Amino acid sequence: MEKYIYKCFDCGKVYSKDEIEKELIYLCPLCGTIEKNKPLRGILLIEYDYQAIRKNHRKEELMALKPGKFWQYEYLWPLESHDKTILQIDESQLDLISLSADCFQKLSYHGKEFHILDDTRNPTLSFKDRASSLVALKALQLGIKEIAAASTGNAGSSLAGICARLGLKSKVFVPRQIPEAKRIQIQSYGSELVLVDGDYDLAFDICLELSSAKRWYNRNTAYNPLTIEGKKWGAYDIFISAKGNIPGIIFVPTGDGVILTGLYKGFHELLELGWIDTLPRLIAVQASGGNAFVRYRQNGQFEYAPAVSIADSICAGAPRALYPANEALIRTSGDTAEVSDDEIYEAQKYVARNYGILIEPSSSAAFAAFTKFTETEKITNLSALVLFTGNGLKDIRALKNWNHDISPLRPDELKKKYGLE
Amino acid sequence: MEKYIYKCFDCGKVYSKDEIEKELIYLCPLCGTIEKNKPLRGILLIEYDYQAIRKNHRKEELMALKPGKFWQYEYLWPLESHDKTILQIDESQLDLISLSADCFQKLSYHGKEFHILDDTRNPTLSFKDRASSLVALKALQLGIKEIAAASTGNAGSSLAGICARLGLKSKVFVPRQIPEAKRIQIQSYGSELVLVDGDYDLAFDICLELSSAKRWYNRNTAYNPLTIEGKKWGAYDIFISAKGNIPGIIFVPTGDGVILTGLYKGFHELLELGWIDTLPRLIAVQASGGNAFVRYRQNGQFEYAPAVSIADSICAGAPRALYPANEALIRTSGDTAEVSDDEIYEAQKYVARNYGILIEPSSSAAFAAFTKFTETEKITNLSALVLFTGNGLKDIRALKNWNHDISPLRPDELKKKYGLE
Repeated sequence: MEKYIYKCFDCGKVYSKDEIEKELIYLCPLCGTIEKNKPLRGILLIEYDYQAIRKNHRKEELMALKPGKFWQYEYLWPLESHDKTILQIDESQLDLISLSADCFQKLSYHGKEFHILDDTRNPTLSFKDRASSLVALKALQLGIKEIAAASTGNAGSSLAGICARLGLKSKVFVPRQIPEAKRIQIQSYGSELVLVDGDYDLAFDICLELSSAKRWYNRNTAYNPLTIEGKKWGAYDIFISAKGNIPGIIFVPTGDGVILTGLYKGFHELLELGWIDTLPRLIAVQASGGNAFVRYRQNGQFEYAPAVSIADSICAGAPRALYPANEALIRTSGDTAEVSDDEIYEAQKYVARNYGILIEPSSSAAFAAFTKFTETEKITNLSALVLFTGNGLKDIRALKNWNHDISPLRPDELKKKYGLE
Repeated sequence: MEKYIYKCFDCGKVYSKDEIEKELIYLCPLCGTIEKNKPLRGILLIEYDYQAIRKNHRKEELMALKPGKFWQYEYLWPLESHDKTILQIDESQLDLISLSADCFQKLSYHGKEFHILDDTRNPTLSFKDRASSLVALKALQLGIKEIAAASTGNAGSSLAGICARLGLKSKVFVPRQIPEAKRIQIQSYGSELVLVDGDYDLAFDICLELSSAKRWYNRNTAYNPLTIEGKKWGAYDIFISAKGNIPGIIFVPTGDGVILTGLYKGFHELLELGWIDTLPRLIAVQASGGNAFVRYRQNGQFEYAPAVSIADSICAGAPRALYPANEALIRTSGDTAEVSDDEIYEAQKYVARNYGILIEPSSSAAFAAFTKFTETEKITNLSALVLFTGNGLKDIRALKNWNHDISPLRPDELKKKYGLE
């Protein structure tokens, strides 16, 4: 058997690596569809020869590694063991895309300990680097030097930064309304910024069309199977850091559902390998202004609605990975949670003040949901983990909301204020 | 002999730990002076019983550690081995102030390899965390819960973030003209922001006066000896990462001269211990608009001039640690270098585009100086190291300067642009 195959989530058809990769196919050729304001159909997921892995590797070997460097256990990634990518690339270039070995941290909330997976100190300060890194290494392996993606900001700046680190070119298609800070980050890394006169959907479509015509490797989220695969890295970093003792419940900021799908995939593989006994419950956390998952689970069918929230990186009117992400919720006895923008601000403030970590609103949403669960559901000590997926400094608009201007004081006024007359 | 003593840089008088720490003394009681627009006099430096350390520890033991966790070799730090700070503090809290184990990275410039010490992924994204962490642990040891500092931005947000991580309170005194992004970062961490109706010097003075009256521990840079001591951590991370094979020349962004003094102190200790044979040449890099060191070395005497540059974190009209930093240059056969704001922008752009690292202007200055040295002086392969002291995302004003707005294009225009008609 080959090291890995591609399998359609919807119709179950299996494809060899070459069928998919050589032709730069991303969705299932049989049933894949991209429709405006609808989730994708025909998302391909990668499967390995788990029996062979189980035979050749032991969990102790994986647990002995440092987190933050997925290429150390190449047998679980869609890169050839003996390919030129991993071997020809300089160790120091891989160091440049390493994540912190201390990404798994213990915090305490009202006397109860919990963990975070801290992706706020990644190369471009977000979880997206996990997907961008795998996609970029695959492009190197395929001998393609240009990668394109549509993005509302974070995925684009991640791709731009990771490409610059690995010597690749990137083209990022963004909607007209992109916030200035995000535009500047993408441009700074030397990416070719393509400002599309339209919304994210239009940017998505034209990016696909041009990628296909120009043979750029495409990193559109959920569409390229490696964006899901890359995000399973989070599950392995949790497994390695926790020495196999994985959390019981994980709060996941959820927009398109790609992190959710990727995390589940990682844990499911670990279960398949017999290296863990149970799956953690995954909680898909959304903002009230962008709650497509919540509504889908309630009504049993998808309905499009525009998404608007301060947590813009989880705003998806049509979550592209809705169906596989929903499967992740079903299989893990998971659930959805919804928080308001006010709760998001409060959580951002709480985390900054109590833990000294500036997180972006999507991560605050996950923390807010965790705090609500501690009130209503049984969360035992150290059973929960919250994903901190992005650094709050990437765009300080949310922080501005709850930090107000103050008036300057003269020394005599200050002395009076502090009781020194 | 006690584990460590304090020694005045200027008059050489020696003080016991208790004489200094119990009374919260910072400058030499005999000769210390703070004068407006002048460097400090009477800076205290810490000395250890190097003979005892040499007897009890071997360099192989130090080199076997992971970088980024200075408390692992407590014998080289002014914290009691058996004190309650290190022992009572939870390992997970120390993890929260750990730096990346991959902070020492190899890059290539025009075919020549060099190293960086990458502090852009620190807890608050700057080198200042090295000083703040040591100061905060000392405050915990002294049983003081409030730390105050005057700051133009970075030191303040670092102190605020590290204090939040360790459960301490911070008060940051800032000048009226502080940029909005820096103010928001300090406030976000829950620091008490004290906006002083005046400049940095006035903030420095009133912060000292109130700290003394209210018995807050003071973290004013250069003034508190632990700000210098904390920055020696950089030298040890280089030593550990390089397995003792330290670089020959180091480019140091220089404003007050505290990083320079601290780095030199670390390397000098390693020399004293016999764990390295020679000192690296230290290059104090300044912006043309704030070149007090350059002028001091040329004229042999200090003259105040206001400092203005895009590299605001190295703008010091009167470098507070001028005299010990100058000693560092003399003892290491070091030098100064001066770069223009245009060169700073160019370097920032080069680093972002070629290495995928967004650095702040002060770090770009150091990189710019390195590139100039490669043109005029002999820099052999792997002999140079550049300090990347801060993340460019903390304040994107400089990035804005060279990333301009672009016009949106419709799909038909994009197809035409890429030759798809």
